[in-house]
Amino acid sequence: MREVLEKKVLSENDRLAAELRQRFHEENILCVNLISSPGSGKTLLLEKTLAAFPQGTPVAVLTGDIQTDNDAQRLARYGFPVRQIVTGGTCHLDARMIDRHLNQIGFRGPGILFIENVGNLVCPSSYDLGEAAKIVLLSVTEGEDKPLKYPGIFHRASLMILTKTDLLPHVDFDPDLAHENARKVHPEIEYLALSARTGEGFPKWLDWLTALREKSSQQVTTL
Amino acid sequence: MREVLEKKVLSENDRLAAELRQRFHEENILCVNLISSPGSGKTLLLEKTLAAFPQGTPVAVLTGDIQTDNDAQRLARYGFPVRQIVTGGTCHLDARMIDRHLNQIGFRGPGILFIENVGNLVCPSSYDLGEAAKIVLLSVTEGEDKPLKYPGIFHRASLMILTKTDLLPHVDFDPDLAHENARKVHPEIEYLALSARTGEGFPKWLDWLTALREKSSQQVTTL
Repeated sequence: MREVLEKKVLSENDRLAAELRQRFHEENILCVNLISSPGSGKTLLLEKTLAAFPQGTPVAVLTGDIQTDNDAQRLARYGFPVRQIVTGGTCHLDARMIDRHLNQIGFRGPGILFIENVGNLVCPSSYDLGEAAKIVLLSVTEGEDKPLKYPGIFHRASLMILTKTDLLPHVDFDPDLAHENARKVHPEIEYLALSARTGEGFPKWLDWLTALREKSSQQVTTL
Repeated sequence: MREVLEKKVLSENDRLAAELRQRFHEENILCVNLISSPGSGKTLLLEKTLAAFPQGTPVAVLTGDIQTDNDAQRLARYGFPVRQIVTGGTCHLDARMIDRHLNQIGFRGPGILFIENVGNLVCPSSYDLGEAAKIVLLSVTEGEDKPLKYPGIFHRASLMILTKTDLLPHVDFDPDLAHENARKVHPEIEYLALSARTGEGFPKWLDWLTALREKSSQQVTTL
C-alpha cells in the first residue's frame, strides 16, 4: 500500500512538473536542479556563479532546506531574486513547492532559474521539478564509490560536478575513478571538476551553462 | 493522507523497534546506530574500530546502502560478522530490516552491534532501530551550519562525532561553532572530534563506547 501511495505522489508530481516544464519552455527559462549530499558545495558554487553574472542578468534562485534560511541569506547578497524554501522536515523539493515559490517571487523569463535542492543524495532524485537538467555535485572528500552506492541521482543527472578539487592533495581520492564509476551508472553523463574556492575549473562551468542556455533558447525560437 | 500513512509506517516501526530494544536488553547487546551524510566517514570509523578490537570480541556490524556491498567487503576484512543490507532505493534502514538480518547472521549477546545507516542526514533520523544510541557524524568539510539545517538527527543523537579533523588546516571550518550549533538543537548532546585517518582523538571514541557498554551492562545486571 505504501508503494501505491508513493507512486500516486510521484505521478501527481510528474503532472505538475510537466506543467512547470511547459511554462519554462514558453517563457524561455533555463531551469537547473542542483542535488548533492549536505555540505558538498552547492551554495558556494551558486554564490560564485551569481557573483560572475553582471547585475541585471535575469537570474533567480530557489534554495531548499529542512530548516533555516542560511543559504538564502548567503545568496541574496549578490543582488538577484532568491527565495528560501523551508521544507520543515521533508527530505526533498517537489514540483508544487517550486510552482508556489516561483509565483511568489514573480520571476519571468527569459532567464536562468537555479534550484538548490535539500542536501540529500537519495530522495530528491525521484522528484522531477520541470528542470532542463539535474546536476549532481560530489566533493572529493566523499569517496569515489558514491556513484555506485547512490546510482539513482547519477543515472538521472545530465552533469556531474566534482567539487572541492583544492582538497585533492590532502585526501585519498582518484577523480578518474569517480568519473568512471559515474559512467558505469550513466555512460553519457557529462563531467566537470572544479574548486569554487580557488576558481580552478570554474570557467568551464560557466561555459557549460552558457551552452545549455543557448541550446534551450534555440529550442524555443525554432518552434 | 500521506501524513496518515507515514504515521502508520512509523508507528509500526516503533513497535518493532521496541521488540528489538527488549531483545538487545535481554541479551545484553549494546546497539549503536551511526548516521551521517554520504562520505562523512562512517565506514572508515568502523574499520578502525573493528581493527582495535581483539579477535573474538563479540561484535557484529549491519551496514546499509542503496546499492553495492562495498562497505561490507571493507568491514569483513577484520574477522567479525558483517552483513550488508541493500535497501534498493529506500533512503533509510528500518527495524524490520534490522530484525531480519540480525536473525540471518545469528548474532547473540552479550556484545556490541554496530549499525551503519544509509548515508542520509534526513530520513534515517525518524526510524528507531531499537538502538541504545544514535550517533551522528559530521565531517569538517561539510560546514558548521549543518546541525541547524538538519536539526532532526542532531536532536535525536546522543553523540556527535566531528570527523576528518586532519583536514582542518585546509578548510574554513570552526569546530567550536559546529559544536555550539549542535548544542542549540540539543543542549545535552555529547561531542567528540577525531580523525580516523591519523588516529587523533580516536581513543576517546573507544572510551565513550566502553563507558556506554558498562552502563548498558549494569542496567541488565541490576534488573
